Amino acid sequence: MDIKAYMVEVGVAARQAASIMASVSTGLKNKALLATADILNEQRNNLMLENEKDLEQARQNGLEPAMVDRLALTPDRIATMIEGLRQVAGLDDPTGIINDLKYMPSGIQVGKMRVPLGVIGIIYESRPNVTVEAASLCIKSGNATILRGGSEAIHSNKAIAGCIAIGLEDAGLPSAVVQVVSTTDRAAVGELITMSEYVDVIVPRGGKGLIERISRDAKVAVIKHLDGICHVFIDRDADIQKANDIALNSKTHRYGTCNTMETLLVDAALDEQVLLDLAVLYREKGVELRGCERTCAILSNAQAATDEDWSTEYLAPILSIKIVEDMEEAIGHINQYGSHHTDAIITENYTKGRLFLTKVDSSSVMINASTRFADGFEYGLGAEIGISTDKIHARGPVGLLGLTSEKYIVLGDGHVRQ
Amino acid sequence: MDIKAYMVEVGVAARQAASIMASVSTGLKNKALLATADILNEQRNNLMLENEKDLEQARQNGLEPAMVDRLALTPDRIATMIEGLRQVAGLDDPTGIINDLKYMPSGIQVGKMRVPLGVIGIIYESRPNVTVEAASLCIKSGNATILRGGSEAIHSNKAIAGCIAIGLEDAGLPSAVVQVVSTTDRAAVGELITMSEYVDVIVPRGGKGLIERISRDAKVAVIKHLDGICHVFIDRDADIQKANDIALNSKTHRYGTCNTMETLLVDAALDEQVLLDLAVLYREKGVELRGCERTCAILSNAQAATDEDWSTEYLAPILSIKIVEDMEEAIGHINQYGSHHTDAIITENYTKGRLFLTKVDSSSVMINASTRFADGFEYGLGAEIGISTDKIHARGPVGLLGLTSEKYIVLGDGHVRQ
Repeated sequence: MDIKAYMVEVGVAARQAASIMASVSTGLKNKALLATADILNEQRNNLMLENEKDLEQARQNGLEPAMVDRLALTPDRIATMIEGLRQVAGLDDPTGIINDLKYMPSGIQVGKMRVPLGVIGIIYESRPNVTVEAASLCIKSGNATILRGGSEAIHSNKAIAGCIAIGLEDAGLPSAVVQVVSTTDRAAVGELITMSEYVDVIVPRGGKGLIERISRDAKVAVIKHLDGICHVFIDRDADIQKANDIALNSKTHRYGTCNTMETLLVDAALDEQVLLDLAVLYREKGVELRGCERTCAILSNAQAATDEDWSTEYLAPILSIKIVEDMEEAIGHINQYGSHHTDAIITENYTKGRLFLTKVDSSSVMINASTRFADGFEYGLGAEIGISTDKIHARGPVGLLGLTSEKYIVLGDGHVRQ
Repeated sequence: MDIKAYMVEVGVAARQAASIMASVSTGLKNKALLATADILNEQRNNLMLENEKDLEQARQNGLEPAMVDRLALTPDRIATMIEGLRQVAGLDDPTGIINDLKYMPSGIQVGKMRVPLGVIGIIYESRPNVTVEAASLCIKSGNATILRGGSEAIHSNKAIAGCIAIGLEDAGLPSAVVQVVSTTDRAAVGELITMSEYVDVIVPRGGKGLIERISRDAKVAVIKHLDGICHVFIDRDADIQKANDIALNSKTHRYGTCNTMETLLVDAALDEQVLLDLAVLYREKGVELRGCERTCAILSNAQAATDEDWSTEYLAPILSIKIVEDMEEAIGHINQYGSHHTDAIITENYTKGRLFLTKVDSSSVMINASTRFADGFEYGLGAEIGISTDKIHARGPVGLLGLTSEKYIVLGDGHVRQ
């Protein structure tokens, strides 16, 4: 198989599909989403049979049980996929919205129209349900998409793609609106991320290694986040009950997510008892504590943190703790060691809250709320294709809006420049 | 001189300056802009003396007279620079604006705050007045900037940078907010566009060669446009007077600008006389016409256009003309051969106007208006750092808003995830 020729073929078909999608009505897009939901429902058994091929292969290849589990399409997960499609059908269509249309001194009327980006390439690892999530968001936002899932999920992904193709055709839309790359050859990824003629943006979803590789080699814009090194800073003016609740929730609600706190910053002016009490709560949850020198002097069971700890995303029941002189030091630490993802201050002080919001250079900045809220659903986006820590285009949780752009429209009545 | 070490030094200083700028008040930013205007005014003579060194060198190097002219800082141009600074001081500050702050079902309040991008690298060719324009927009939008002008303008740019530094210090801001790269070594550009740790976005301003090179090698996001291949389509339902006015203005108002029309598309259903009359108007202006076969059959003095003509930005009194069957063919031609810059339809037909706006995939799409309106000032942006034909982040004329981004802010009252 000539991978380059194959990918160009996929790219050409995607570009054509995108140009059709640019003016497809909301009703037809919803029809395609709902039809796909129905077909997935009918094809449950077939999906599980195809998925079993991937699971069998994964077991033979000695994949870790956790990985095999992520790969499995259980009846519950299929139901969630179907529900997800129906939810996306229910979301507002962002495209075609015209904003800020106003008259200029010359007499022309200038405004902005929200439009699809065009062709979105999505590269992801084992979970096959991402195929449906990503496809549904791209369809609703009027984009065409090229999906490249993990090779270990190829049978599942092809079966899902087959259902989506039927759903699209049901609505009279070209099946090339959603294409699953049918080869597991890694060269296909190299083509996908460099064929800027056919692809407008790449969204990588997966481990840090994958995202770093793609960011380095891409010749197409990438919407991504590398790390989630999130902080909670407990200010001297914090309400201690709120501080305990949030510091505990931000770390222990789930350990493996990117919006989990990895470093707790504590104002030196607070009573030592605050830290001692928190340590008890963490110990109950089985969280290992690593502290700066001053922290270790207070918490006898904390290990000494190394410099590396401050820039580590543990994704595990481990927490680094640093005592800082004041909010300025906390902000400095966050901007230096953090990953510009999500950071929170706990304070009752008006001025410090305002300053923290302005000075912390992260995609989500919070006052008196758990970092775990940094999520497309919690932010009311309805769905999320990822979280971006880039500053360009989309920042923070990326929903339908992040898959669109705005072009200028100008309405005249024969106007010319003087 | 170790270029890499020098550029890292510049980058570190810019990053520090950017973190200070993120929370500088509008008043102080305006103070810096107005102080710079005053200092430029005082230093007029010195600026012209420094500029004379560049001009002398340029003449010795045998630069074309047009290039030497672009390099000159005349009293008029200095006055325009000063006026530009005062205008930017008068623009609204986009940063800090909080939008869409609303309560979520969980009880948290989520909104978006507009913030500076951080550090903006601007690479441009000979015109030294760009130094002031770019610096003023970056200051007002709360960014730090690293400016790399053409080597032929190095004395002028350093003199201007000196004035800006005094203006910044007058307002108590670090002079590193605006840094002019002091070496003319081209390796500095290579460093600037790849040091993603210190630079958030690159804006190249110059010829196609420069922009292509930078886009290819950059490891930092680039806001750019490569070509301005703009179209006017005269629909069968056009008002002929409007069509004549706009077709003439779009081509002949200025030849060398990116929003100048390069290809005229004419509906085959129109009377031949329309094209004959237009040809007379173009002939009066000395515009050379190159037509498709059908055009040449009507216009005896038109040359035959080659396929290359349809994708050429002439930047000259040359126009290619194509007769198309209908609007669909016109849109197909624009999306295939155009550069997604600016395209206009002339029509009185409501449905076709609506379709054209939606289906043409360009940064500016117009009805019954000259393509020459695609400009930051005409769009009410107050100023323009460039025009983007990218789909990501900023599309069309880029003003202060294009130099900012939005981060999420979350306000809670001790809220945790359930």
